[in-house]
Amino acid sequence: MSGIITALTTDHRRAVRIAESAQAAGGVLTEEQVRAWFAERRRSDLARVDRVPLDRLERWGTDPATGDIRHASGRFFTVTGLSAEVPGAAVPAWTQPILLQPEIGILGILAKEIDGVLHFLMQAKNEPGNPEGVEISPTVQATRSNYMRVHQGNPVPYLDYFRDTRRHRVIADVLQSEQGAWFFQKRNRNIIVETDDEVEPLDGFAWLTLGQLHRLLADDTVVNMDARTVLSCLPFSGVGLSASSPFRDQEFRQSVLRSCSEEFAGLHGIGDILSWITESRSRHEVLAHRVPLREAELWHRGEDAIEHESGLFFRVIGAGVRSGHREVSHWHQPLVEPIGIGVNAFLVKQVDGVLHALVHAGVQPGYLDVLELGPTVRCTPGNYAWLPDAARPPFLDDVLSAPPGRVRFSSVLSEEGGRFYHARNRYTIIEVDAGYATDPGPDHRWLTLHQLVGLLRHSHYVNVEARSLVACLHSLAGRPE
Amino acid sequence: MSGIITALTTDHRRAVRIAESAQAAGGVLTEEQVRAWFAERRRSDLARVDRVPLDRLERWGTDPATGDIRHASGRFFTVTGLSAEVPGAAVPAWTQPILLQPEIGILGILAKEIDGVLHFLMQAKNEPGNPEGVEISPTVQATRSNYMRVHQGNPVPYLDYFRDTRRHRVIADVLQSEQGAWFFQKRNRNIIVETDDEVEPLDGFAWLTLGQLHRLLADDTVVNMDARTVLSCLPFSGVGLSASSPFRDQEFRQSVLRSCSEEFAGLHGIGDILSWITESRSRHEVLAHRVPLREAELWHRGEDAIEHESGLFFRVIGAGVRSGHREVSHWHQPLVEPIGIGVNAFLVKQVDGVLHALVHAGVQPGYLDVLELGPTVRCTPGNYAWLPDAARPPFLDDVLSAPPGRVRFSSVLSEEGGRFYHARNRYTIIEVDAGYATDPGPDHRWLTLHQLVGLLRHSHYVNVEARSLVACLHSLAGRPE
Repeated sequence: MSGIITALTTDHRRAVRIAESAQAAGGVLTEEQVRAWFAERRRSDLARVDRVPLDRLERWGTDPATGDIRHASGRFFTVTGLSAEVPGAAVPAWTQPILLQPEIGILGILAKEIDGVLHFLMQAKNEPGNPEGVEISPTVQATRSNYMRVHQGNPVPYLDYFRDTRRHRVIADVLQSEQGAWFFQKRNRNIIVETDDEVEPLDGFAWLTLGQLHRLLADDTVVNMDARTVLSCLPFSGVGLSASSPFRDQEFRQSVLRSCSEEFAGLHGIGDILSWITESRSRHEVLAHRVPLREAELWHRGEDAIEHESGLFFRVIGAGVRSGHREVSHWHQPLVEPIGIGVNAFLVKQVDGVLHALVHAGVQPGYLDVLELGPTVRCTPGNYAWLPDAARPPFLDDVLSAPPGRVRFSSVLSEEGGRFYHARNRYTIIEVDAGYATDPGPDHRWLTLHQLVGLLRHSHYVNVEARSLVACLHSLAGRPE
Repeated sequence: MSGIITALTTDHRRAVRIAESAQAAGGVLTEEQVRAWFAERRRSDLARVDRVPLDRLERWGTDPATGDIRHASGRFFTVTGLSAEVPGAAVPAWTQPILLQPEIGILGILAKEIDGVLHFLMQAKNEPGNPEGVEISPTVQATRSNYMRVHQGNPVPYLDYFRDTRRHRVIADVLQSEQGAWFFQKRNRNIIVETDDEVEPLDGFAWLTLGQLHRLLADDTVVNMDARTVLSCLPFSGVGLSASSPFRDQEFRQSVLRSCSEEFAGLHGIGDILSWITESRSRHEVLAHRVPLREAELWHRGEDAIEHESGLFFRVIGAGVRSGHREVSHWHQPLVEPIGIGVNAFLVKQVDGVLHALVHAGVQPGYLDVLELGPTVRCTPGNYAWLPDAARPPFLDDVLSAPPGRVRFSSVLSEEGGRFYHARNRYTIIEVDAGYATDPGPDHRWLTLHQLVGLLRHSHYVNVEARSLVACLHSLAGRPE
């Protein structure tokens, strides 16, 4: 019996340490010092981004046969075309430009206990597409081309902690997908490693507590997508977690903590949830394959951009970047510029005092395995001017008209600034009554946070937008008022 | 606390019921009656299979542009080409014919407690490629084209239990891959549903206990691949299972039972195993994509077959089938005929009295997610006459030279007879000493059965050959001498 008891104890101890870090407003740095450090980085690490015509992107060329835009090295990523068929959907077939990046990159956060509190080594990093400049990023954020040094930049600091984990403890390590609407089957390795080494933060890095990260998450465009997705994979869970919270009197917080704890059952058992996902994947047919970019119908290439004839969805643009802080100080690249600000919303409700989030099993042509669980609503409302009415997502109206008093979280957060130009979504968590949508239809289910975190140990289950929202939900468990 | 306790109790009760069924030599039918029923089915359900030149397959045509062989309806499957690159592998690039079957089929077994013992409704079914005729098959084995009745055959019996599970209890429900060397990204839904309905077995069906199925598994070419893969997904596990076994004195059996029980820790925690799989998927690059069949180099199409110039690997042949028992009594189809009998072997060892199996994280071009865990050794030894020495799998020599006294299981079992002609592999489980391969290298790990069964709740982890071996290992826990 000793095996399982040891494992439970280790898991429980880890959950308690994560919960303690989430409640720590101060750590190596005080909250004020964190703010000052971040403000200083925003001032000093500036990037200049200029529009460059697509034909004049240095080291990027357009294949005359296909129209695909690719790097001279053949690495990094390619702008190509996608043909998608989803029989029975409101839009059953379409073509579009899509980013192809078959390499698996590393998004790694290094963790370490300092003065009894778990800290995370975060980088204040600028990316060309970031709307406000520097954002809080993982310790390492590197494509394979990056860390194999295809562009002959400097070595990636701290990379070895993630490439050889044997001397350390792995807290989470899983391949997770990215935007299935913009990427074709892209995944990154989301990894959190705890070390006992003495690690001095380099310039641009700082050790933060989870509580400090959660506070920053409440601000617009501060914590970047890569940091959010890695944080969502933290095993933020564990028996007895609720008892250790100082917020026992706060009903909503208490319901979040219960939702994180496996001792509180959800509306559905995990076996039923897995069966629902299997059934949904069998029910939906998605036929997606690459086509030459020039075969993307209704998309037109002008001098400065590739655009949809409606002017909606997104544009592919060219950018020239100058940065004082990067391994390469000057480069050109294509970027995807979404039109309009999207909404990624979880509707949540308390069931017997346990918070449940309404997830949507949603098909995207870029997913490797048919569908993943996403936010209740994930969309850019402006796009429905062009799309058929039937494409309008269920629950969108309730999200858009939610009374302010029921909004538990709301921040405008950016998507990956290395590929997307000023891509922003409003991430929002809205509480509804226990009687709301008790039968939400075949494509939605109410899940506890504990169940979502359990699914996050594996690939192909929880999409990138839902992962951001999981990180935001966790911030509501740990963050003091 | 009541939620988790209820869940544990339900899981534990189910594990005990499965274990009890595994120990039941008699059920609705005695063992003798099972043998007699099966023998009678083999005699009466005969199929006649004649070779048909590829150009003369009725309702199947060759695309003049690509050379692909497809059905006139566009459904069922297509014989197409695959181009694979695995940089750094012994064979870093090749092309080959491959079966494309993007539809997700259903492999379903209906379960029911009868006189206090869990029974499984199995079908004695013939498939054109079966080497010995009828084999024991799942209750339902249907492609989407089947159950959508593309060929206008009869409705599939019992299908509704799996298409609408709400009135029943789902024991397992997961998409699992099939042969990654012969299929491009094919998956089937492996599902076990328990019902309380009164269910009368139709002609060709019988209610069997798990113990009876395990006995049949020891015979050559009796239990078919589809039945084996579904059985492997049974939650054959649970705290306290070992105590309920009447075979406490038998050391090997006892080690299998401990291996099935979560209270016995494995050499590696599940977090470390998941991290190893993630790391392996990041380390291996596989670039696989469809090409026209005529671009499969070194493969030549003759009148009767598409063959590799070495005469090795497999042939694509044409078959004309006549059957008295099928929904359609006469049809033509292509089949893949492997050359030679393969070996699928688990090396197993006892570590502190807990059986561990040595699994191989193996890349196959047809997998959706880079690699899956397979047998210690999976190969057709004859193919190494043509392949480079470096391609010879590690541990193969120890498998081929194992002393008979260490062979715990050995049967020649067939692969899916609906697609493969006389495809047989020797499935073997060989016990080695505790000190064997303590550091088995980066692509192998020692896992307990409990860990394998846990991974089998999810897609993309355990390949079809390893699933057969998991079912065989379970048969060693429950089967009386």
